[in-house]
Amino acid sequence: MIKAESIKTGQELYKRAKTLIPGGTMLLSKRPEMFLPEQWPAYFSKSSGCQVWGIDGTHYLDMCSMGIGTNSLGYGNSRIDAEVRRVIDQGNMSSLNCPEEVYLAEKLVELHPWADMVRFARSGGEANAIAIRIARAASGRDKVAICGYHGWHDWYLSANLSEDEGLDGHLMPGLDPAGVPRHLKGSVIPFNYNDLGEITEIVKNNPDLGVIKMEVSRNFGPATGYLEGIRKLATDNNIVLIFDECSSGFRQTYGGLHKMYGVEPDMCMFGKALGNGYAITAVVGKRSVMEAAQKTFISSTFWTERIGPTAGLECLKVMGEIKSWDIITNIGLRVTKEWKAMGERCGLKLNTMGIPALTFFSIDSPDWLKYKTFITQEMLKKGILAFSGFYASVAHEDQYLARYFNELEEILDIVAQCERGEKKIENLLEGPVCHGGFKRLN
Amino acid sequence: MIKAESIKTGQELYKRAKTLIPGGTMLLSKRPEMFLPEQWPAYFSKSSGCQVWGIDGTHYLDMCSMGIGTNSLGYGNSRIDAEVRRVIDQGNMSSLNCPEEVYLAEKLVELHPWADMVRFARSGGEANAIAIRIARAASGRDKVAICGYHGWHDWYLSANLSEDEGLDGHLMPGLDPAGVPRHLKGSVIPFNYNDLGEITEIVKNNPDLGVIKMEVSRNFGPATGYLEGIRKLATDNNIVLIFDECSSGFRQTYGGLHKMYGVEPDMCMFGKALGNGYAITAVVGKRSVMEAAQKTFISSTFWTERIGPTAGLECLKVMGEIKSWDIITNIGLRVTKEWKAMGERCGLKLNTMGIPALTFFSIDSPDWLKYKTFITQEMLKKGILAFSGFYASVAHEDQYLARYFNELEEILDIVAQCERGEKKIENLLEGPVCHGGFKRLN
Repeated sequence: MIKAESIKTGQELYKRAKTLIPGGTMLLSKRPEMFLPEQWPAYFSKSSGCQVWGIDGTHYLDMCSMGIGTNSLGYGNSRIDAEVRRVIDQGNMSSLNCPEEVYLAEKLVELHPWADMVRFARSGGEANAIAIRIARAASGRDKVAICGYHGWHDWYLSANLSEDEGLDGHLMPGLDPAGVPRHLKGSVIPFNYNDLGEITEIVKNNPDLGVIKMEVSRNFGPATGYLEGIRKLATDNNIVLIFDECSSGFRQTYGGLHKMYGVEPDMCMFGKALGNGYAITAVVGKRSVMEAAQKTFISSTFWTERIGPTAGLECLKVMGEIKSWDIITNIGLRVTKEWKAMGERCGLKLNTMGIPALTFFSIDSPDWLKYKTFITQEMLKKGILAFSGFYASVAHEDQYLARYFNELEEILDIVAQCERGEKKIENLLEGPVCHGGFKRLN
Repeated sequence: MIKAESIKTGQELYKRAKTLIPGGTMLLSKRPEMFLPEQWPAYFSKSSGCQVWGIDGTHYLDMCSMGIGTNSLGYGNSRIDAEVRRVIDQGNMSSLNCPEEVYLAEKLVELHPWADMVRFARSGGEANAIAIRIARAASGRDKVAICGYHGWHDWYLSANLSEDEGLDGHLMPGLDPAGVPRHLKGSVIPFNYNDLGEITEIVKNNPDLGVIKMEVSRNFGPATGYLEGIRKLATDNNIVLIFDECSSGFRQTYGGLHKMYGVEPDMCMFGKALGNGYAITAVVGKRSVMEAAQKTFISSTFWTERIGPTAGLECLKVMGEIKSWDIITNIGLRVTKEWKAMGERCGLKLNTMGIPALTFFSIDSPDWLKYKTFITQEMLKKGILAFSGFYASVAHEDQYLARYFNELEEILDIVAQCERGEKKIENLLEGPVCHGGFKRLN
């Protein structure tokens, strides 16, 4: 068997990967099957701006996820990379701590005047687990109400444990809870977004509820008074309110999306866009809550490496100078608007959702997953990585958007022919249909 | 208030850090109070080989922890750094996956022929939590027996939940379990190292026990037949046996310490030394166990960044070429031997423990913590970072060891004078006594 390092194409390497790595990838959302089974390039050799090169050298335009939302400043931002190179030159690690973590903490608190203290980690799941540990310690109560996607840890997946011990449940499809201790059943209560009555009832019926964790915005934004209502509910019942901003942070404001709505949590987490592709995540909170971290044990060697906070610090500087959240919001709005216009021109029932800089569309049809696969298949032929979503970055300049719109409309036109029964989508697909992915709780 | 970035000394910056970061640091073992309260330099500006510079420019020789065990090849290994720079030039992230994770997985499996598959994370706590999730999913049983230190996550700290719900327990002093759901009480059973009878009894009394997780070596190595006995016990009872090699890996063999003892686990984890200061950790296991990861949800965006696996891959190459485990074992043996000899020459009851490349000493006296503080205080005056342990790296060349031995013996001589009642240690300390740290379960 030849060595993996000698394999020359992405799909061949992915076949090897599946024998070496359960599931093939580290992130469900980067599985080739989520895009185009048997054809997706799977691996990259180079990335720059919004350009990506496969391991066989093929060039692609990334109109897809920009690292699943990590690179809102584009791949390889020169200023951030320069800071990371400085860290490599000067040493990424030592027996002492890196000062950059203090500078970054100070900056995050400055951007969120309601907050006083910060803990850092290197993945969003960790940041979520740290926040829950601190919030439980601060409230002295174990039960948590959740709305949204908050990672892979036991505390969260326990929401998917069913009543029947023999058959684990699927409250959130795709998040299988095998291996999550059944002891945790009932410790986490999911609630629906924009239903203030429901969460009010949950709080009333669960005096042992100490924490509410939620995303600020879901497929659609908050109804009038919803976030304010949750804030009051939490305050009145001494509940720690946590906004998970791992996905939404720095995409519509200079910090958490909650700044736009003027509602302040007790804690929030940042990830994804915070380091522009370098691993850094943060838990930001009020002193009264964060100090509870002292009553528990939250500690990891690699949280002391220096690249993460250094990249985060420079990323915040660059973002602040160019107001990247405005740029990517405008780009995202443009893409969303053009999707809708194309849908109308082609006569498709096309829906859009998400925040502007992290936008998605779907077509109202039983054949949607096939259409989605077809779109990815055809765009790939034209050298464009694309699916039914778009994560905006400042690198998505006009010329790239124009090319994307141009190519996409031709494909949507064929989809419309399928919808009208003039063509059969099954005859157009050159491989298996993409996987549906996990549905987020609405 | 001046900005943190303008603060010029480590202790001043640490004072600020404690207002911004609960606990002040990300890792308990890097808290300045663990070494020399109010005097430890706390932060570094530069590190290279076994040299460290504080943020005020002061130069130190690191005879201390080398990043708490991360840098067995020294700080700033030129080959690994070159590979990381290549990744920065070519892009650290994209919407596709990085091929280096497949190459690294293949290499780790090659080094551990009993293993077939790998998952990566970016911290040791994560790797431990992933291993437990997969092992529980594979065995279908929730209960876990543990021996050793395995991170900060809920699953592990639950061992410290006491019977009395109002008063959390301290089975492992220093690991406070506030915020760990009380539902988990009883899900983890600690056992003592080198007592085969005890773990046999635990397995007999707990038919719902599915996992045994342990360190291969503790303060002292395994008794004859101990590891073999545990292996047989696990096999006979369909229990998944996990060796936590986050600390011990690549320090005495080219891979897990278990290779030296010829006992194979079903899974093991690597961290610390795997990336020589860059964040990368791994869960390595048999296919039959690892495939259970497919029944559950383990996924994180930043586990797809490219620096970690790239650094890990090059680190393994460098280690293999120079046989670093032999080099650091010999250096560690030399330090341990010299400590003993100095103890004898000074007339101190000096004990040593640990594996050669990760060695510790203590002096049998009620004043030990004061002596430890004094040693750190005096060594710091001489420009040496030191405590009661030593993490060997290939950068610890003869000249540095000679200087260290020379300086240390003078200080131990004063300690001996205190022990004989000729001097009072209290009169020699210029600040508070260091914190005791958390005791690992023996």
